[in-house]
Amino acid sequence: MAGNSFGTLFRFTTFGESHGPAIGCIVDGVPPRLPLDEAFIQGFLDRRRPGQSRFVTQRQEPDAVRILSGVFEGLTTGTPVMLEIVNQDQRSRDYGEIRDRFRPGHADWTYQAKYGIRDHRGGGRSSARETASRVAAGAVARRVLETAPAPVTVRGALVQVGPHRVDRARWDWAEVERNPFFCPDAGTAALWADYLDGVRKAGSSIGAVVEVVASGVPAGWGEPIYDKLDGDLARAMMTINAVKGVEIGAGFAAAELSGEENADEMRAGPDGQPLFLSNRAGGILGGISTGQDIVVRFAVKPTSSILTPRRTIDTAGHETEIVTKGRHDPCVGIRAVPVGEAMMACVLADHFLRHRALVGAPGPVGNGGPVEDGDPVGG
Amino acid sequence: MAGNSFGTLFRFTTFGESHGPAIGCIVDGVPPRLPLDEAFIQGFLDRRRPGQSRFVTQRQEPDAVRILSGVFEGLTTGTPVMLEIVNQDQRSRDYGEIRDRFRPGHADWTYQAKYGIRDHRGGGRSSARETASRVAAGAVARRVLETAPAPVTVRGALVQVGPHRVDRARWDWAEVERNPFFCPDAGTAALWADYLDGVRKAGSSIGAVVEVVASGVPAGWGEPIYDKLDGDLARAMMTINAVKGVEIGAGFAAAELSGEENADEMRAGPDGQPLFLSNRAGGILGGISTGQDIVVRFAVKPTSSILTPRRTIDTAGHETEIVTKGRHDPCVGIRAVPVGEAMMACVLADHFLRHRALVGAPGPVGNGGPVEDGDPVGG
Amino acid sequence: MAGNSFGTLFRFTTFGESHGPAIGCIVDGVPPRLPLDEAFIQGFLDRRRPGQSRFVTQRQEPDAVRILSGVFEGLTTGTPVMLEIVNQDQRSRDYGEIRDRFRPGHADWTYQAKYGIRDHRGGGRSSARETASRVAAGAVARRVLETAPAPVTVRGALVQVGPHRVDRARWDWAEVERNPFFCPDAGTAALWADYLDGVRKAGSSIGAVVEVVASGVPAGWGEPIYDKLDGDLARAMMTINAVKGVEIGAGFAAAELSGEENADEMRAGPDGQPLFLSNRAGGILGGISTGQDIVVRFAVKPTSSILTPRRTIDTAGHETEIVTKGRHDPCVGIRAVPVGEAMMACVLADHFLRHRALVGAPGPVGNGGPVEDGDPVGG
Amino acid sequence: MAGNSFGTLFRFTTFGESHGPAIGCIVDGVPPRLPLDEAFIQGFLDRRRPGQSRFVTQRQEPDAVRILSGVFEGLTTGTPVMLEIVNQDQRSRDYGEIRDRFRPGHADWTYQAKYGIRDHRGGGRSSARETASRVAAGAVARRVLETAPAPVTVRGALVQVGPHRVDRARWDWAEVERNPFFCPDAGTAALWADYLDGVRKAGSSIGAVVEVVASGVPAGWGEPIYDKLDGDLARAMMTINAVKGVEIGAGFAAAELSGEENADEMRAGPDGQPLFLSNRAGGILGGISTGQDIVVRFAVKPTSSILTPRRTIDTAGHETEIVTKGRHDPCVGIRAVPVGEAMMACVLADHFLRHRALVGAPGPVGNGGPVEDGDPVGG
Repeated sequence: MAGNSFGTLFRFTTFGESHGPAIGCIVDGVPPRLPLDEAFIQGFLDRRRPGQSRFVTQRQEPDAVRILSGVFEGLTTGTPVMLEIVNQDQRSRDYGEIRDRFRPGHADWTYQAKYGIRDHRGGGRSSARETASRVAAGAVARRVLETAPAPVTVRGALVQVGPHRVDRARWDWAEVERNPFFCPDAGTAALWADYLDGVRKAGSSIGAVVEVVASGVPAGWGEPIYDKLDGDLARAMMTINAVKGVEIGAGFAAAELSGEENADEMRAGPDGQPLFLSNRAGGILGGISTGQDIVVRFAVKPTSSILTPRRTIDTAGHETEIVTKGRHDPCVGIRAVPVGEAMMACVLADHFLRHRALVGAPGPVGNGGPVEDGDPVGG
Repeated sequence: MAGNSFGTLFRFTTFGESHGPAIGCIVDGVPPRLPLDEAFIQGFLDRRRPGQSRFVTQRQEPDAVRILSGVFEGLTTGTPVMLEIVNQDQRSRDYGEIRDRFRPGHADWTYQAKYGIRDHRGGGRSSARETASRVAAGAVARRVLETAPAPVTVRGALVQVGPHRVDRARWDWAEVERNPFFCPDAGTAALWADYLDGVRKAGSSIGAVVEVVASGVPAGWGEPIYDKLDGDLARAMMTINAVKGVEIGAGFAAAELSGEENADEMRAGPDGQPLFLSNRAGGILGGISTGQDIVVRFAVKPTSSILTPRRTIDTAGHETEIVTKGRHDPCVGIRAVPVGEAMMACVLADHFLRHRALVGAPGPVGNGGPVEDGDPVGG
Repeated sequence: MAGNSFGTLFRFTTFGESHGPAIGCIVDGVPPRLPLDEAFIQGFLDRRRPGQSRFVTQRQEPDAVRILSGVFEGLTTGTPVMLEIVNQDQRSRDYGEIRDRFRPGHADWTYQAKYGIRDHRGGGRSSARETASRVAAGAVARRVLETAPAPVTVRGALVQVGPHRVDRARWDWAEVERNPFFCPDAGTAALWADYLDGVRKAGSSIGAVVEVVASGVPAGWGEPIYDKLDGDLARAMMTINAVKGVEIGAGFAAAELSGEENADEMRAGPDGQPLFLSNRAGGILGGISTGQDIVVRFAVKPTSSILTPRRTIDTAGHETEIVTKGRHDPCVGIRAVPVGEAMMACVLADHFLRHRALVGAPGPVGNGGPVEDGDPVGG
Repeated sequence: MAGNSFGTLFRFTTFGESHGPAIGCIVDGVPPRLPLDEAFIQGFLDRRRPGQSRFVTQRQEPDAVRILSGVFEGLTTGTPVMLEIVNQDQRSRDYGEIRDRFRPGHADWTYQAKYGIRDHRGGGRSSARETASRVAAGAVARRVLETAPAPVTVRGALVQVGPHRVDRARWDWAEVERNPFFCPDAGTAALWADYLDGVRKAGSSIGAVVEVVASGVPAGWGEPIYDKLDGDLARAMMTINAVKGVEIGAGFAAAELSGEENADEMRAGPDGQPLFLSNRAGGILGGISTGQDIVVRFAVKPTSSILTPRRTIDTAGHETEIVTKGRHDPCVGIRAVPVGEAMMACVLADHFLRHRALVGAPGPVGNGGPVEDGDPVGG
């Protein structure tokens, strides 16, 4: 049973291989009468697009999206929205040498083991190119979130590259759009630039951590016990290429916290709702949104395509070595930022509709603002 | 749209509140002609059962399971397996004071915000008592896994309590069953006993980290792009009460690894399959099992029920304080071990059937054994 | 992949065999704060209960339902509603002779062929006893429909027994509750009583047709293209034991109609909505409700359990004969009436929630009333 | 919650409007290593294509299909198969007059009521043009069925046009491909030609009945209780445009049969399997295939687009009249034959995979051959 769909009520199904004629998705469950055009979606695709700085793959793809259905005279009609992106820069010649050898750290071996066949060109279906479809779907999800009772904002940032973490005291969301790393601090961005130039010149690669924050989500989204909001976010992020870990709020740091430190105390807020004094929970308790900011972080492993020869086997089972040439991201975590945002938006759009189905109207919006300390990880 | 089912082909649906008449689940998708009786399931429930040491809640529940359908003359029939556990020790009187006040860190406020109503007794549906149903379903999943091409073993251990991590050099799976912590090292277990006595006497609580390992899983399980094996495991673990983070293989440590360090090199193994020289991937590449051990870790926050008064509000929106008396786990991470195992077993059983549906027969088994270094986190 | 769940947002999963300890269902997706108690559900179960007249099976079952979860202080909580019915009159001794012989027309052979094992007692899982769970779920669905923008009424009637069709000119819904056939005309009921006495005394059985009508459904329910309202109703009814055909509105008679006869013309109704001049469509166009009465009919085959010896084979493949003694319905179509109603209610509750999820509010209610001619079949 | 996907394990999702840039589908769950190319799919699309005789719509569409993903070097890869058909003959000018008026019998009013917006051009999403996507998916399903334990053949025929039923005594499957009606008898085809010329010249339309038969299906496919094979077939056929009734085997005729007449007796067949003496059941008992031919019939209402003025209202709620000009099928039932076949193939492919998932291997093949009388309806 294949699994190329994501979401339940807001649901998208993607198709396409790295070097096939096109990639894209059908988004089903888009409410009618939402404004939608290609320019809006393109804006998000452009943030993820390769070739925009020396720190990402040099593959040239305009990633121009076309809406093939579901929109009439500028508005969604409630029918499936088909989004298609034609592949341009396929350069299959680069990939001849990986036809018969399995690249360590890539999905070459597992696809062969599972399916007994694989489109090796550029990683085929397992290529990070698939994430463009996610970003396109995420743009539609943002349109859905605009109809929520209060505006929902979804923003992401790179917060760690190798050993270098962002300086949280200098966090500035506006800065995220000003550097090639989606880094919320200019100083850290400069440091990363130097560091990554070294990685890149060594033909190596490095891991990273991405943080995505949603503000304005009302209390009440999430469907216990198995479709909890955090469960769906964990799945969403873990399915992004190269992701190896996901945490919510305090995350793994919670293992070292006492009950006193961890439980977010409450004071009376507006309309009888709580004003939370901290946000260790990352905006989710019992799998349901609290009204606070939803805070998710995920770890991205280093690109497995490097210039150092690595030991491997070929399709005949013989031992050999491989060097992965071609155009690759020295830190694939960078371009994972808009992908993480898109997945967050899709999960939230889905849960907005799910909550509306069950309860008929969304719950109240809590405070996303002042917390006792600024750091959800608890310092 | 509620979400009380887990899995697609091997699928269970749970019901029940902490202080209602019963809890349990319907397991659908159980292949026919598997041996199954109550004693087999009971063995797993007993590992999770409360009241077994001074380090867990003192609630007395025999957690006796009854099979109400789907088994005939000792064998499954392919029809739904209904598992029921009658609640015994309900003692609702303990919970009167939380009827009108929201316990910080618990799901009291979010359930009220979402549903406009809640069964406050013992946390109602949000109580960790629900995890008994998961463990029962997990036992059935193990029966399914016995029919896989090679024996699949699922084992869990507690690897961190507060700041104290297990000594991995002394890891001994047999030790796990000999101490009240599911700790794989006797020395660490002794240290935790002292530490947790202090926590318990202070009326406090502490977080923890659990690790679950599956051995014998053949290469090929997992359904890209959205039902990847790691995505489903992340969701599975994140839906367990109090879990705030999940990682696979190197996990968050991968953020600091280079491409050279991270990619698991391959040599020729038996039958033309790879012998991996390390297992940073935690047994999953591209969302598909590699044939190596599958290694998942998850962080459990401290129990929010503590004896220190915490600031909160009541259902009328007034500010107040609360002390959560009653019977609670000072370290809820302990009893999360068998629950984590159960969820791993359920995810694997589901993907075993999914792979069989798509491809007709499972892929080859890789090596779960010798790796270049013993630590998947890469030291 | 087993299939013991029905519905998407309003979703129930049933369990249990004819002669096991209990049957029942978990209903997930029940909105919170609906009044629900056992007495309400019991009322519907009592209509379907066996042993109420000489025209149905004499098995004595009180079919007493117990709510095990999801209701707190008389209101639903939004969590799963578990409904359990303990089996009383199991009398397994009646069924010894069918252990090794396949009853023609029953599912004995197909269950054996599919699963390689079967609980033969009373038909096991394939027994019509399972429909009690549907009726229980249907009662909950009615509670959901009470929250629709206008009251939705679901009523069923038996309209044909063998060659004898009901006199539609004398249709009186009140009469349905006054005779043992759910017949809307007393005269026809008297005729059926005589006819069925003959069938019963001959140890034979006969087929029937059931009609179910929903009034008050607003325009707009149904989800094209594959979850059309009529598609879901067709599936719902066809899964009821012994059903062999389903039709909507004019149904098979539409094959002989011209476009002029078939298309329901419209005049201006209240609030700018249409007043339809006929209802050949049975209240559904393009898979979406029109606001008119929704009219579904289904054909029920004769009970396969008869006293005439029939040729068959045994589990060893040898030719033999079988007479099905025991307690059976001479016309199983009678008790299918409340089951058909329940399935209609469940489909509508599901689509009410689905429409609410997608669009946020239900569409307008059309006219369910005056049509050009009284007969949706077009005379 | 929208519903544009069909199937569970073999699952396709369609998109596209009658006059948008393209229509098509993503087929997910296609097993790897099946031969597939555009020519194979095109053969089935050509059978459904408009403009092939004077008895169907004159819209000119080559319906040329393109495979955009999921196939590598002539074989499926196990990844999503994207099939795209570009719309050519859009001629939107024909449809200007239906922008503001609701055509009786069409889905114009219900789409407006549900979504508050509609693409009126050619019926938009509700157009029968969508069925081309089903036929394309059905071609892929046939490839899947080729891997079943025995060859599965799916064939359809038109068996009734208005009052004129096919002469079953002269049934010849080969004749189906020789006349423009998919009629299995040349004499009946000639009669229909005359009859339909009259209908066409009168600017009217007429209903029809289609029969689809699957041979070679082994015993054991179908998933009780709610995903029974007949339930899924009923849903599949009822979602085809203009279908108002579905029946299996004896269908509605079963209402007039006695238990003796209806139950298909069994004799010993090869390999200990039954040789059925009749097939009233239409190849399905208890929702599971018996190994006999699976026989489904469905009623198609007359095209609602006719030249006689019909009373209706406009979008402002005012009373008016409408004549539907343009290019329409006088008997839309004709082109429903390949669509019905496609849906049967998709349902069977899905259940083949579902059965394989649950049981691991398909059950035995029964006899599809000699029955006591030739007519499943019991003549």
